[in-house]
Amino acid sequence: MKAKNLKLLLTAGIGSVHIDLHAAASAGLTVAEVTGSNVVSVAEDELMRILILMRNFVPGYNQVINGEWNIAGISYRAHDLQGKTIGTMGGGRIGKLLLQRLKPFECNLLYHDRLQMEQAVEKEIGAKYFENLKEMLPKCDVIVINTPLTEKTRGMFNKEKKGVLIVNNARATIMERQAVVEATENGHIGVYSGDVWDPQPAAKDHSWRYMPNHAMTPHISGTTMDAQVRYAAGTKDMLERYFKGEDFPAQNYIVKNGEIAPQYL
Amino acid sequence: MKAKNLKLLLTAGIGSVHIDLHAAASAGLTVAEVTGSNVVSVAEDELMRILILMRNFVPGYNQVINGEWNIAGISYRAHDLQGKTIGTMGGGRIGKLLLQRLKPFECNLLYHDRLQMEQAVEKEIGAKYFENLKEMLPKCDVIVINTPLTEKTRGMFNKEKKGVLIVNNARATIMERQAVVEATENGHIGVYSGDVWDPQPAAKDHSWRYMPNHAMTPHISGTTMDAQVRYAAGTKDMLERYFKGEDFPAQNYIVKNGEIAPQYL
Repeated sequence: MKAKNLKLLLTAGIGSVHIDLHAAASAGLTVAEVTGSNVVSVAEDELMRILILMRNFVPGYNQVINGEWNIAGISYRAHDLQGKTIGTMGGGRIGKLLLQRLKPFECNLLYHDRLQMEQAVEKEIGAKYFENLKEMLPKCDVIVINTPLTEKTRGMFNKEKKGVLIVNNARATIMERQAVVEATENGHIGVYSGDVWDPQPAAKDHSWRYMPNHAMTPHISGTTMDAQVRYAAGTKDMLERYFKGEDFPAQNYIVKNGEIAPQYL
Repeated sequence: MKAKNLKLLLTAGIGSVHIDLHAAASAGLTVAEVTGSNVVSVAEDELMRILILMRNFVPGYNQVINGEWNIAGISYRAHDLQGKTIGTMGGGRIGKLLLQRLKPFECNLLYHDRLQMEQAVEKEIGAKYFENLKEMLPKCDVIVINTPLTEKTRGMFNKEKKGVLIVNNARATIMERQAVVEATENGHIGVYSGDVWDPQPAAKDHSWRYMPNHAMTPHISGTTMDAQVRYAAGTKDMLERYFKGEDFPAQNYIVKNGEIAPQYL
């Protein structure tokens, strides 16, 4: 280790993939982030993508740009969100905010997570819990991925409805790259919209740029100007606390006193 | 009039711009539509557009297509919807459904209409009424147009916040065509998303196809597959009632017994 006086590693935002957490823990460093600072941003972005896919926006926009006018060529794949079944893999902070925002659309809302929400929260949101992901996925018209990357979730998509719409702002490697390309070609996936790539930045020749039926963006869902204000304020707050010898908000710690927070293990 | 035995004109959908209502009234014809059959479709589409504009989706998508990766070039104009002020010109059926769907986003919701909503409805939706449109418009980060075309509204946009986002699924001629082009060029309008054009279909060289900062589509917001099912069912229902000598649902009539319904005058 070169920086012998290093004591504190702060992510001005969310995440720790740029840090060797085990080395940091061994060296007694503190690692922290501005937990929660982009959850609203990501949840809003997911709802935007659900609507973009369901309403077939991208082909409509492309007709405008290309000088075309063919309403039937868009509407045959455009549907109302009302009455459709939306399932989120993950009912954590982002998943909850998404489900709350979906509620007035009068959809069937489903979620899978390791843990069921408290009954009052679940009732207020109006979503149905599936302990078994494999039971939930085939019911969904739209699948939203809000789950961390684990071996369990990698490359798992194969039992969905034909034409399922997929929103993935979580991790690109949850999906097999080539399987997504083939599924958007053969119609197994209706449209795929993701904000995450492997690797990032995505190369000019990344196949997800050129597959049919996608609504991809560079990784922007958590980087609105509002989120950046929260990142900056949270980082400033932790620096001020550090120099006053005060603790950070408990949820911000990734490594503290030589221990890695359990959600990062 | 050539069709001497004509008695009934049904729009398999919404609207009557293709019919001379005064001539129909004079001739004693009945004119009807499937009122309300696309209001959910249009309201969902408006919320999609609000998010697309606020989150700066189109430049992100274009970067993907063009082999680019420049997050800062998108995020400097990407904002959360949370906390922003959204105003709808028109608090009728579409406006109400839009406001209901916006409620969980924690925005400041405003609406202008000739008539204020019933107090219980307004309270449930959580939107503030403006009798005077000119008072509402300068407060808005996003203006959604849900109002019929009248002389009063034509070309009225000139007092908004710099960079205002505009969604117009109502009537293209509410806006001055060239004024929109110039405002998207000089930044007075941040981004303009509309689903309506003048004339329709839009010509290949229509200037709204080529202006900067737009998210336009051909006129598709009311033509989802779900709306088309409702159009067909409503039309079939009216034909069956007609041949049984029964009245149509009252709200469907555009011309009845020689009189034009007041909202069409």
